[in-house]
Amino acid sequence: MNEALFTTNNLWMMICIALVFIMHLGFSLLEIGLTRSKNTINILFKNVMVIIIGLLSYTFIGFSLMYPGEYFSGMFAGFAGFGVNIPENGLTAEYYNGQYTYWTEFLFQAMFAATAATIVSGAVAERMKLSAFIIFSIVYVGVVYPLVGMWKWGGGFLEALGFYDFAGSTIVHSVGGWAAVVAVWLLGARIGKFTKKGIGVIPGHNVPLATAGVFLLWFGWFGFNGGSVLSANPGATSLTLVTTCLAAAGGGLGAAIIGLIKYKENDLSMLLNGILGGLVGVTAGADVMSVTDAICVGFIAGGIVVFAISLFDKLKLDDPVGAISVHLCCGIWGTLAVGIFGELASLSQFFNQLLGVGCVAVFCLITSFIILILLKKTIGLRVSRAEEVDGLDAHEHGMSAYPYFRINDI
Amino acid sequence: MNEALFTTNNLWMMICIALVFIMHLGFSLLEIGLTRSKNTINILFKNVMVIIIGLLSYTFIGFSLMYPGEYFSGMFAGFAGFGVNIPENGLTAEYYNGQYTYWTEFLFQAMFAATAATIVSGAVAERMKLSAFIIFSIVYVGVVYPLVGMWKWGGGFLEALGFYDFAGSTIVHSVGGWAAVVAVWLLGARIGKFTKKGIGVIPGHNVPLATAGVFLLWFGWFGFNGGSVLSANPGATSLTLVTTCLAAAGGGLGAAIIGLIKYKENDLSMLLNGILGGLVGVTAGADVMSVTDAICVGFIAGGIVVFAISLFDKLKLDDPVGAISVHLCCGIWGTLAVGIFGELASLSQFFNQLLGVGCVAVFCLITSFIILILLKKTIGLRVSRAEEVDGLDAHEHGMSAYPYFRINDI
Amino acid sequence: MNEALFTTNNLWMMICIALVFIMHLGFSLLEIGLTRSKNTINILFKNVMVIIIGLLSYTFIGFSLMYPGEYFSGMFAGFAGFGVNIPENGLTAEYYNGQYTYWTEFLFQAMFAATAATIVSGAVAERMKLSAFIIFSIVYVGVVYPLVGMWKWGGGFLEALGFYDFAGSTIVHSVGGWAAVVAVWLLGARIGKFTKKGIGVIPGHNVPLATAGVFLLWFGWFGFNGGSVLSANPGATSLTLVTTCLAAAGGGLGAAIIGLIKYKENDLSMLLNGILGGLVGVTAGADVMSVTDAICVGFIAGGIVVFAISLFDKLKLDDPVGAISVHLCCGIWGTLAVGIFGELASLSQFFNQLLGVGCVAVFCLITSFIILILLKKTIGLRVSRAEEVDGLDAHEHGMSAYPYFRINDI
Repeated sequence: MNEALFTTNNLWMMICIALVFIMHLGFSLLEIGLTRSKNTINILFKNVMVIIIGLLSYTFIGFSLMYPGEYFSGMFAGFAGFGVNIPENGLTAEYYNGQYTYWTEFLFQAMFAATAATIVSGAVAERMKLSAFIIFSIVYVGVVYPLVGMWKWGGGFLEALGFYDFAGSTIVHSVGGWAAVVAVWLLGARIGKFTKKGIGVIPGHNVPLATAGVFLLWFGWFGFNGGSVLSANPGATSLTLVTTCLAAAGGGLGAAIIGLIKYKENDLSMLLNGILGGLVGVTAGADVMSVTDAICVGFIAGGIVVFAISLFDKLKLDDPVGAISVHLCCGIWGTLAVGIFGELASLSQFFNQLLGVGCVAVFCLITSFIILILLKKTIGLRVSRAEEVDGLDAHEHGMSAYPYFRINDI
Repeated sequence: MNEALFTTNNLWMMICIALVFIMHLGFSLLEIGLTRSKNTINILFKNVMVIIIGLLSYTFIGFSLMYPGEYFSGMFAGFAGFGVNIPENGLTAEYYNGQYTYWTEFLFQAMFAATAATIVSGAVAERMKLSAFIIFSIVYVGVVYPLVGMWKWGGGFLEALGFYDFAGSTIVHSVGGWAAVVAVWLLGARIGKFTKKGIGVIPGHNVPLATAGVFLLWFGWFGFNGGSVLSANPGATSLTLVTTCLAAAGGGLGAAIIGLIKYKENDLSMLLNGILGGLVGVTAGADVMSVTDAICVGFIAGGIVVFAISLFDKLKLDDPVGAISVHLCCGIWGTLAVGIFGELASLSQFFNQLLGVGCVAVFCLITSFIILILLKKTIGLRVSRAEEVDGLDAHEHGMSAYPYFRINDI
Repeated sequence: MNEALFTTNNLWMMICIALVFIMHLGFSLLEIGLTRSKNTINILFKNVMVIIIGLLSYTFIGFSLMYPGEYFSGMFAGFAGFGVNIPENGLTAEYYNGQYTYWTEFLFQAMFAATAATIVSGAVAERMKLSAFIIFSIVYVGVVYPLVGMWKWGGGFLEALGFYDFAGSTIVHSVGGWAAVVAVWLLGARIGKFTKKGIGVIPGHNVPLATAGVFLLWFGWFGFNGGSVLSANPGATSLTLVTTCLAAAGGGLGAAIIGLIKYKENDLSMLLNGILGGLVGVTAGADVMSVTDAICVGFIAGGIVVFAISLFDKLKLDDPVGAISVHLCCGIWGTLAVGIFGELASLSQFFNQLLGVGCVAVFCLITSFIILILLKKTIGLRVSRAEEVDGLDAHEHGMSAYPYFRINDI
């Protein structure tokens, strides 16, 4: 490889790092926009802390767990030692087949790591204790996510079995999604969500910020999927951006049309979650889909979002922002879709995909349950009734997001 | 061309795609910021749908219309068939003189396509029916815009005649602007805008978001103009970014100074629209201007914005966000400025520019009139009086942008 | 150097220009978010004008002062003539060791220039006259900043003495910070900040926007520090991004923990300012720090922010957004830290750093005092009591940021 190409590949990955970073602003705005203003500071605090936790835990332990390299000690786990140290086996300057530097690899993966906990953050919003969420995030991002990641991207057994997950419909989004299910189940619904009179509607306080969040997530997905090519290879990266954008468009269209039929309303939050569903859905196979495949995968993901949100309401699982519908349901769909659409489509691939989804499901359900039940039995998961009614901002942070605006709290 | 340079060119274009994409967040925030909160959901819904429409219609038909390639069948129109299919004439990997991939070309152009409809969206805000706008956008973005684009960028008669429009002052911004004029004229003004007492002032509800929108548009213009070089050629791209930024600065300064003289007020919305005017103005000739040229073109564009906004008020054309002043007037100015300033300046070039402006004007006025009058006679263009007074969000979407904030609606 | 590598280096610098540009949106959102809604238009107007002033003054005079090149006439100052003209000494296409174009160099440096005035803007918010701020900015950005910059980056005496400041902890952030101290001292505190009853708390009106601002500043810092490598050199750029992000994380963690101990509260604004402190702190040595160094430098910077904000309150220096704590205190710390942590750490380097900090301090304190005292004696620095109570938006701009929201002003 010549110096110019190495530099270009490395440059592309650095841009993708920045784009994945700004997704965290997208997640933050989406989450505060779809919840009440009395919990806004809490959500922002959590989402900023999650990035810090992601970067630091990945520095100290996560990267070594996820990419154990020659320290690899089995199909299920490995560990290359604490801290980020340039291995002495010649990876001083180049990495990943000599396409970019060790530092680039580390930072790109570290930016990914925080995503799993951020997904959980949305589902548990407005009622989970800050301390419990922080501890959960440290363990989940620092240990659970890297272990699952290693199974596929670090050379583990899912890779060996032929499981395919390009940028992480399962390895990132479902990992967050499964924990979100467990957390929502253990936490219970927000006061006023499920009452004797039926399902209460708790609208978000700032839809423009939620919309801006979705735009930023789409923008960041250029890096999330584009960077997962792991080089600036022109054919692969540009095809990936095309399928990513068309799946997002398909997802938005699907959710808008199916939402309009089901609810007779042009529901903006459905449109937005449909776009995110399309993006999550195409993530597993963005590099192996055609234009038509991508639109189909996205469109179906958009439909899944509409029905999943309705289903979780019926199951009395209170997910304020629809994180489980988007990241778990569309994550599963997108992973399975690799066996149905695109270059790899085949029955055997479909079963490989199903196997991967199942293994990750079992592991994440068990580990997140253990972490969360321990927290519940010790410091507790949920804020007091008074704190929830007053809002978490007043009690946990002593601040208000909009201290001068007159707001009709519910 | 070597592999490294091809990769670098392709990478630059991909970044520009992302930057043009984020302009849509800029347009959205600008438009909601300068209008009332009761129509915010409607505007966001429209602007998100426009991206989806742009991407999908361009996939199915637009790209084939705009760049018919060897299927080219004349100076005025051509068609390469439905859908996006890599042509079998060897363009499998490389495109545009072998500088980037076919997928990159497609996505860059697709991101541009939605812009024309977005411009119209701003002008018709707060009173146009959602369904009518959606249908208009599909036809205008899917057929009209690509036809005009083909005249210049797809090898049509304007290219042959020596018309110059680097990144689309006319081909993109005026195409949107002419339709905006027709739409505003057919729709009529918002209730309360032109009364017997004079011209009513209907301020926007969220100036910080409008300002953020302008920042994002400027940011995105790095890609809009920078990507129009169609390679990462160092001299051409960096000069383009310099002239783009200096014209924006000149436009802001021009509008601020002339606005201060005319209105004795430091009007932020004038400053912001002046920046946008400068950006639109330099778009036609960003690659052929010197530093001084760019500042002059921008400064004059800023002045044009101030007088145009005042003129359209006198003409009783109600354009809530100043879209026509910015995109049409400065689009025309910028196109003509190529004949006055910079490397190409000459009397004959000026007349070429004038001819191009005229041809596009006639075609866009006629086509947008036909589409809009058909819509007016069938489903109707305008919401009912009750819907307009209550706000479009309540009737068309059943949602409120800020459900917990107490808002003094007008 | 081959064409591909030159193109790649130039491309990286152009991306960094865009990223530094978007920092101005970050600064704007942070500043309005942490102040009252009645002054929002004024702050936005100032911050947009500062970019325009920065670009234009740098075009006319600043670039020639900061990089006099062969026109260099001493260790303390030089001047290459008015305007931006490609020097005739062969720099037509290439620049900076032939790594990118003259236009790229100009625009990257121009985008930096406005930063110094923006820092001052935050500190003087809610009470300084618009006209006085504009004039101050023109002189400070057009003359003072380039002179200091020349001392280090333009080949002046600080460079000769071995002072190290990679991306401007001192040369950019402290230059703004020192002027902010002088301005705050000459202006006096806002009404209600320091009363007989003690230190009044004047919370910001929109914490979500402030948080978004910090995210955008971190995002932009990828370009601020990454671009300061002055090429796309893979090892140097990727290490710089790693240290930048880890210092930000360390800063946030430091401020959160120390803030929690000191105030028993999970203070979001402290967390955010801690992140910024970490970023400012690592800026002087981002290319010479290890992972651990960067986390330590950031963590300490986060602690400094907590104590500095408290200290300036005791000193009755009213800095509404904490700009002095972040940019001056952490700027000094980061500059000195180059002598304590990382590759260059040594006692002699520490004294070099101290010398640089001292020279810049003396020059900036004197020059900003002269400019500001002249303004105070002529047009005045501060708005009238009535304007301050009513808000600057009503008097200076005749607009309201949120005209339809009911707001409880203080």
